[in-house]
Amino acid sequence: MTRPIHANPGAKLWLNLFEQAQHTGRPIREQLCQALRQAIRSHALAYGMRLPASRTLASDLGVSRITVEAAYAQLEAEGYIHRHVGKGSFVAQQFAGSSTKPAHAQPSSARLSARGQRLVDGGGCRDPRLPTAFAAGSPDLRVFPHEIWRRLLNQQLRRNQTALLGYGDPQGYLPLREAIASYLQQARGVKASAEQVLVLTSSQQALHLLGSLLLDAGDTVWLEEPGYRGARTAFDAAGARLLPVAVDQDGLCPHATLPPPRLIYLTPSHQYPTGSTLSLPRRLALLQLARQHGSWIIEDDYDSEFHYDGRPVSSLQGLDDSGQVIYLGTFSKALFPSLRLAYVVLPPALIDAATTARTVYDGHSSQLLQAVCADFIEQGHFAAHLRYQRKLYRSRRDLLLDEINRKLKPLLTPLPSPGGLQLLTLLPDGLEAPLSQQASALGLVTPGLRGLYGGQEAKDGWLLGFAALSAEEIRQAVATLANIDRSKGK
Amino acid sequence: MTRPIHANPGAKLWLNLFEQAQHTGRPIREQLCQALRQAIRSHALAYGMRLPASRTLASDLGVSRITVEAAYAQLEAEGYIHRHVGKGSFVAQQFAGSSTKPAHAQPSSARLSARGQRLVDGGGCRDPRLPTAFAAGSPDLRVFPHEIWRRLLNQQLRRNQTALLGYGDPQGYLPLREAIASYLQQARGVKASAEQVLVLTSSQQALHLLGSLLLDAGDTVWLEEPGYRGARTAFDAAGARLLPVAVDQDGLCPHATLPPPRLIYLTPSHQYPTGSTLSLPRRLALLQLARQHGSWIIEDDYDSEFHYDGRPVSSLQGLDDSGQVIYLGTFSKALFPSLRLAYVVLPPALIDAATTARTVYDGHSSQLLQAVCADFIEQGHFAAHLRYQRKLYRSRRDLLLDEINRKLKPLLTPLPSPGGLQLLTLLPDGLEAPLSQQASALGLVTPGLRGLYGGQEAKDGWLLGFAALSAEEIRQAVATLANIDRSKGK
Repeated sequence: MTRPIHANPGAKLWLNLFEQAQHTGRPIREQLCQALRQAIRSHALAYGMRLPASRTLASDLGVSRITVEAAYAQLEAEGYIHRHVGKGSFVAQQFAGSSTKPAHAQPSSARLSARGQRLVDGGGCRDPRLPTAFAAGSPDLRVFPHEIWRRLLNQQLRRNQTALLGYGDPQGYLPLREAIASYLQQARGVKASAEQVLVLTSSQQALHLLGSLLLDAGDTVWLEEPGYRGARTAFDAAGARLLPVAVDQDGLCPHATLPPPRLIYLTPSHQYPTGSTLSLPRRLALLQLARQHGSWIIEDDYDSEFHYDGRPVSSLQGLDDSGQVIYLGTFSKALFPSLRLAYVVLPPALIDAATTARTVYDGHSSQLLQAVCADFIEQGHFAAHLRYQRKLYRSRRDLLLDEINRKLKPLLTPLPSPGGLQLLTLLPDGLEAPLSQQASALGLVTPGLRGLYGGQEAKDGWLLGFAALSAEEIRQAVATLANIDRSKGK
Repeated sequence: MTRPIHANPGAKLWLNLFEQAQHTGRPIREQLCQALRQAIRSHALAYGMRLPASRTLASDLGVSRITVEAAYAQLEAEGYIHRHVGKGSFVAQQFAGSSTKPAHAQPSSARLSARGQRLVDGGGCRDPRLPTAFAAGSPDLRVFPHEIWRRLLNQQLRRNQTALLGYGDPQGYLPLREAIASYLQQARGVKASAEQVLVLTSSQQALHLLGSLLLDAGDTVWLEEPGYRGARTAFDAAGARLLPVAVDQDGLCPHATLPPPRLIYLTPSHQYPTGSTLSLPRRLALLQLARQHGSWIIEDDYDSEFHYDGRPVSSLQGLDDSGQVIYLGTFSKALFPSLRLAYVVLPPALIDAATTARTVYDGHSSQLLQAVCADFIEQGHFAAHLRYQRKLYRSRRDLLLDEINRKLKPLLTPLPSPGGLQLLTLLPDGLEAPLSQQASALGLVTPGLRGLYGGQEAKDGWLLGFAALSAEEIRQAVATLANIDRSKGK
């Protein structure tokens, strides 16, 4: 049971972890703790394993023995290790993987609820955190009008400091709801009053909240195929039966034989990820179908602010006379992701229910950030920033297309992309995985298309984010990408 | 079907609403729209009802006919009303209550999922929004060190502006997790490393997330009786079987015959709302029971920062050697509610699962506010603000007790309250409802005790918030409360 650390082939891992931790500029003791915790949690150091004596480790690492002792003491206090005088320090049981069953019931992932396990098995949906080429989905935060934002923030803090610190309206700060309603009426043809707007933290929260509120286990949901992973995850967490429905150049294209949906999830302005626009006949047919079956439609207008060619099509919600459509928008792309503000425009029948759900889920959104966002819109900065971004991102899309055509044809086949922050390019069958690996080795992120399919048949491709990259960064990234060996993986 | 507005006894309501709206300083057209929307949504104006002609209404209200026409046009655009030339304007169907069934499937609350309906039927849990006497649960936001906060906020905005705008770590901003872990180790005896901390928006989000992750429908949850309503709502939304367990002066007091729990929800430091502290023997017994049955324990340490008499008892989590306890804390009370930052310290087995759930629920918390909060703690302002608040709130608690003893005895019987932001006082049987009504008529909020019981037997009482009230406000409020007629309701 008790093995010296060197007996385990993976045991050197935590020394590497320690080296990584050294670049964080934190105290050595804390670096050491962090490396050990990670090694234990990742099972590189398994239950019962003996750690090196503090004297040995101190000498190995070139740090003082006091530091190692302090780190061990800290880890013992946290329960990661046990120390026995005269025997040594051992990885504690509850923090590590183990091959032996304990005598008492043991906390483990097996003690999640069935719904929790399903959620974890789904893998969640993590947003891209670094503005590397070609991570998708982020605007260029470097061009955000920081000074204007800071001025408005300070004004609000001075003017309303105490009022904005207290508990807020779960439906959202009224001036922001009014600003959103007014913007959506003008820009997106949405039929919206402030009373119908519910402010949330993110599209993801909206999808999860609506999934819980509207879907019972086994209910059928139509999802665009390929489509947005966050929606699939949210409705899967609700236990729904997810039905992938093919998308063509006119958007969602349902067969007449499909089982009627309880809910249809759509990105009609720029279908995610293909970029196609849902045609008017299809819009009317889907509304008719929703009326007929009493289905809800969620219209996720996630990046409609960024339309580059011709006039953007108005919202589907604006065509709805029967209160079937829930309109969803976010400030994560038009302003910045960490603002944590998104919104839904609800049919009146859902306003109270969704607001009540919000009180049970997480109360309300930051009042301060809502107030600043409202000022930003009302004073015209939002419209100005959108105009600026549209022009900038269009030029970046054009550049990326040019560069791809010059350097990556015929390997990559870009699809028409009248808007959005990323460009879908198709790859020959079977090449997505091996070429993505090569790209990754070159320091590039190439979000894959295959992962956006929920059904059996998937196409190979890359969804290349361009909006967050300067012209120079786009040129360099494409030049780097041109170095991949196209024959590999064949 | 079509009735003139004057035929309905409730129809004058919207004129009152209009008068209320007039004090908001918004344009008259918008005030009128707002009043009409509210009247329609609240069913004061029912489906098919005819609105007054614009000329008549303009004259009644003393506003121009153009204004009324504009408001009607707006409401028509929003779908609230239909207008027919030569006939008049009528309340539209989808926005109002109706006694007739429509031909097609109709959006209504009946189209919620079973889980959604359960959630709505539960009524949600709304936080007190106004710092009126004696609303419970809020600190005094007037004594918050606004200037320090604003300075730190501006520093972060200048230093890290772009980095803090992007997508964040779903587990939480690392420096904040480190600051939380370090604070909890020192102040609460919690065994915590930054790796175990998950930053969330609120206690409510924590309870809802953990409820989904750990509870299947029908799973037994032990809840303190009386107890915190937000917890009950969250676990009820998860479909759990809620079992009220009596609380005495030593905290939760389970009978040996109770069915074993999947989860126990506890407020061991200051039981909510009785203020009792869970005794050490009970703590050990509950930990033993949890180990035996593989139960999770959620330790909600919601206001442990505010302990006034003697030394506060350390956390239950610190006694747990088996990873059964999930520790929960919030900045809503120690700092301010609209910060939207709370945290859980997770047993290692739950870290990845809970973080994945966060990605599906709402992504992550505002990075900017997390960064400022981390600075606030690390630079010592948090500790200083806590010291200041503790001293201030203790004096307010003492004053409230004095005033009650002088003016409201023997009607009110205060319970011992060694800490917290509110004082539980018992009332003679049957008096809570009638006296609360009287207090409300006098402009006072008196949060009731009965609503905090989940079982059959409830006691009458008031949970009087004192922390947010100045000495003068406490004196005035008690003097006002002394005017209630104690004989009423008998």
